[in-house]
Amino acid sequence: MNEYKKINDKVVEKIRKIMKNDALIIYQDEESLKSYSNDESGGEYYAHMPDIVVKPETKEQISELIKVANDENIPITPRGAGSGLAGADIPIYGGIVLSLERMNRIIEIDTKNLVAVVEPGVVTNDLCRLVSEKGLYYAGYPMSVETSFIGGNVATNAGGSKVIKYGNTAHHILGLEVVMPNGEIVEYGGKRRKDSSGYNLLQLFIGSEGTLGIFTKIYVNLIPQPGKVVDLLVPFKSIEKAIDNVGPLMTETKSLPSGIEFIDKKSIDYASKYTGMELPYQDEVGSYLIVQYEATTLQEVEELYEKSGKSLLKNGAKDVFIADNRTNSEKIWRMRRNWLESLKAVDPYVPSGDVVVPTSKIPEIMEYITQVEKEYQVDIPVAGHAADGNLHPAPLKPTNVSPQQWKNLSEEILGKIAIKASDMGGAISGEHGVGFIKKDLLKKTKPNQFERMKLIKQVIDPNNIMNPGKLF
Amino acid sequence: MNEYKKINDKVVEKIRKIMKNDALIIYQDEESLKSYSNDESGGEYYAHMPDIVVKPETKEQISELIKVANDENIPITPRGAGSGLAGADIPIYGGIVLSLERMNRIIEIDTKNLVAVVEPGVVTNDLCRLVSEKGLYYAGYPMSVETSFIGGNVATNAGGSKVIKYGNTAHHILGLEVVMPNGEIVEYGGKRRKDSSGYNLLQLFIGSEGTLGIFTKIYVNLIPQPGKVVDLLVPFKSIEKAIDNVGPLMTETKSLPSGIEFIDKKSIDYASKYTGMELPYQDEVGSYLIVQYEATTLQEVEELYEKSGKSLLKNGAKDVFIADNRTNSEKIWRMRRNWLESLKAVDPYVPSGDVVVPTSKIPEIMEYITQVEKEYQVDIPVAGHAADGNLHPAPLKPTNVSPQQWKNLSEEILGKIAIKASDMGGAISGEHGVGFIKKDLLKKTKPNQFERMKLIKQVIDPNNIMNPGKLF
Repeated sequence: MNEYKKINDKVVEKIRKIMKNDALIIYQDEESLKSYSNDESGGEYYAHMPDIVVKPETKEQISELIKVANDENIPITPRGAGSGLAGADIPIYGGIVLSLERMNRIIEIDTKNLVAVVEPGVVTNDLCRLVSEKGLYYAGYPMSVETSFIGGNVATNAGGSKVIKYGNTAHHILGLEVVMPNGEIVEYGGKRRKDSSGYNLLQLFIGSEGTLGIFTKIYVNLIPQPGKVVDLLVPFKSIEKAIDNVGPLMTETKSLPSGIEFIDKKSIDYASKYTGMELPYQDEVGSYLIVQYEATTLQEVEELYEKSGKSLLKNGAKDVFIADNRTNSEKIWRMRRNWLESLKAVDPYVPSGDVVVPTSKIPEIMEYITQVEKEYQVDIPVAGHAADGNLHPAPLKPTNVSPQQWKNLSEEILGKIAIKASDMGGAISGEHGVGFIKKDLLKKTKPNQFERMKLIKQVIDPNNIMNPGKLF
Repeated sequence: MNEYKKINDKVVEKIRKIMKNDALIIYQDEESLKSYSNDESGGEYYAHMPDIVVKPETKEQISELIKVANDENIPITPRGAGSGLAGADIPIYGGIVLSLERMNRIIEIDTKNLVAVVEPGVVTNDLCRLVSEKGLYYAGYPMSVETSFIGGNVATNAGGSKVIKYGNTAHHILGLEVVMPNGEIVEYGGKRRKDSSGYNLLQLFIGSEGTLGIFTKIYVNLIPQPGKVVDLLVPFKSIEKAIDNVGPLMTETKSLPSGIEFIDKKSIDYASKYTGMELPYQDEVGSYLIVQYEATTLQEVEELYEKSGKSLLKNGAKDVFIADNRTNSEKIWRMRRNWLESLKAVDPYVPSGDVVVPTSKIPEIMEYITQVEKEYQVDIPVAGHAADGNLHPAPLKPTNVSPQQWKNLSEEILGKIAIKASDMGGAISGEHGVGFIKKDLLKKTKPNQFERMKLIKQVIDPNNIMNPGKLF
C-alpha cells in the first residue's frame, strides 16, 4: 500500500488556483468536512474524515485536480449523493473528496436518437421526470431513485426492482466521458447503439466504484414511456410457494413483469408497525410478492393482470390484490419502500446486506439466513428483488451489543450469508457494490478474478490514487 | 511481435496425447487444413494456412492445449463456424486452429431461472428453436443466425436486426466459463442476474474476438417467447425521409419495434435481379424500411401496426404494406436476407463493410458514401439496421480491377467510410468486429482506448499466444 501524503498549504494553494472559487472548497471546517466523511453503509464507525472537499464544475478542473493528486501522491475519493451502502465514497485514507454535486447539468435530451446526455451529479429521479415530459423513459430504477445521483448508479452498476425486464444500470449506459487517473479525458461509447471495435472498456467503468476514473458525462439510453402501470400484491403461505411462482409467472403469461418484489414475514411486521398499515392476510402468510407490469395501453395492463392473477392463484397464491391506480399502488408499495426506514426506527445501526443468488435458490438462502439468525441470536428481516434473486438481509443489533462490537458482528453475519450466496452460484453484492466493507469477501469469493481485476487496476491507475482501499 | 515457433513432431505428439483421438486432429492434410484457413471476410487473399487444426471436446483438453502453446510459443486461433467478417478466425501466424465445432452441447435449459447453458459450438438458430419449444426466447439475432455459433456471436458481440428492442449479444450473456491464456479455467458470472462485486470482467470477454481466452460454457438469458410477429414494408422517396421516421415511430407509438431494417435503392435493384422479385413502388423510391414488431397477442400486434402505420404515413411514407403471416412476411424479408448473396452473385469478392453511427446521422453517412462512390468510381450498395445506425456498405469490384488490387482498394474505401462514421460519433465496427482487417482503423479511431486495451491484453495474455495479430 502507498504511503499517501497529507494535504499541506502548498497543495491547498494549487487546488485553489484550479477551483478559482473558494466557495467550492471545504478545508479545515470540521463540521462541513464531517458531512463528507460517511455514507449510508451503517454506523458512524465507518466514517473517515477527508482533508479537503472540492466541488468541481468542469471536467478540466477534475483533470487538473487529478494531476495534482498524482504529483503529490494524494488519494482522491469521488463522491455522488453519499447514498452508498458499501462505503465506496468514504475517504478511508483522507486526502481529497471530489464531490460531483455541482456537475448536475442535463446537457441534452436527444429525442431523435433516444439518448440523454447528463452530468454525473443529476439526481436519477430528476432525469426520469424530465425525460417523461417528452414521452420517454429511463428504465434504470434503483430503490434510492429519489436521492441517488446517476453517476453513483453507474459507479455501482445499481440495480433496483426493474432489472428482470430492463436490465441493470449497465444496460442503459451507451457512453461515458471519463477523466482518467492520469488526468486524460477519454470518451467511451456515445450516442451509437452498437460497437464491436475492441474491448468493451465502457463496461469496465460501470461498477468500478470510482477506482478507474471519474465520469464527467453520461450517455443514457431512453425508451418510449410505457405509461400504464399495474401492481399486484400477492400473499403466500411460505417463501417457497412465493418463489416457485417467479419462473412460471413469466412463462405462463408470456410476459416480463417490470419487477417482482419480495418481503418476508419479519419485515412485514416491522414495516407494519412503522407505517401503521396492515396488509391483508398479514397474520397468516410467510411472504408477499409485489408484481408490477408496465405497458402502453390500459387494455394491455388489464390483460396482464388477468393472466398473471390466474397463474398466481393456480400456483398457490392465497389471493391477488390489484392496484391499477396511484392511490392503491402507493398502498401496496408503502411497506416495501419504507422497509429500511422501519428497521432504522428500531435500530439506527442496521446495515443493509446485499446478496444475489439464482432466483430458484432464494428459498435455500432464506433457510440459511434463518439458521444464522438462530446461531447468532439476532433478528434478520429480509426484503429484495425476487425476480432477479437479489436479497437484502438486514440484521438488527441486539440491545446488549455495543456499536463497535456490532460493527464486527454484523460484518461477520453478513459475510457468512454473502459467502453462502456466492457458493450457490450467486455473488456477494447484487447492486450496492464492494466498497471497502466487502473487499475481503470479494477476494475470497472471486480469487481468480480478483487477481486479474488488480492487474487491470494497476495498468489503469499505476499510482493508485483513484479511490484507494476500495475493491482491493 | 513475438517470433512464433512452427509446429514440429514433438509438439504434434503432445497434442495427440491430449486429444486421445486422431480423428479430432487435422495435420499435413492440405485440403482439410485449407477449409480452416479463411472465413467470410472477402476474397481468398485473406487466407492463411494453419499448421494444425484441433477439435477438442472438453475444457480440460483446451486447457492442456493452451499450456502446450505457452510452453512452445505457438499461436492459437480459436474458430467458431467460420462465418466471421473481419478475419478474427484466420490463423495469420499459422500455429494451432482450435475449432469449437465439437463443443456443441446444449447443457441445460433452466426454465426456473430462464437461463440456457450451452457450449460455444451450438448453432445460434438451434438454440433459438430448442428454447422456443419451451415457450422461451433467445433474443440475440445476428443475420447469420442459421450458421453462426453462439460462441462466435459472443466473441464478436454480434448484433443483428433486433438490437433496438433487446440489445446486442452482450445483453443476453449472464456468464462465461473461460479457459484463460495460462490454461486456468475461470467462471465469470453464471445464473445470477445481478452482480456488483468488482469489475465486470464478463463484459471484457464479450467482443474480445478470441484474444483473451476461449469460452467453454455460455450462460444465456432467456425471456418469454413473444409468439406474434408483424412486419411492415415501408417505401420512402428518399433516405432522409426514411430515417426521419425512426425516432418518431418509437415515441409516437410508445413502443419499441424489434427491428427497423434499411435497404437502399441500389441494393433493391441487385436483390430484385437475384430473387426475381419486385417490391411495390420499386422504381419510385429511394429506400425501404422493414419494421418488425413482436408481441404476445394478436390484438397487441394489430394495435401496433395500426398505430405505426398511421405514424409512418403521416411522416412521409409512400405506403405501408403489412405482413402478419409467415408467407407475406417471408416475401418482405427475402430481399433483405438475400442482400449479400445477391451482391456475391455479381461479385464474389464483395466485402461487407460494417459501420455504426448515431441513428440520426444515417442520411449524412449515406451522402458521404455516395461521394466515395463517385471518387472511386465504384458501386456501393448499402443495407443495414436503421434502428441502431449500423450500416453495411458493400463496394463492388469493378471488372477492370484485379483481386489483389481490390483487396487494397476495397480496404481503402471501407476504411474511409469507417473513419467518417467514427468522426460522426460512431465506430468502425457495429457488429462484425475488428479481426486483423480493421486493426489499423481501431488504432486510428480510438487511440486512447487502444493503448489501454493493449495494456489489458498484456496482463491477461503476457505471451501473446491467444489469437495474436487480431485487434492489435
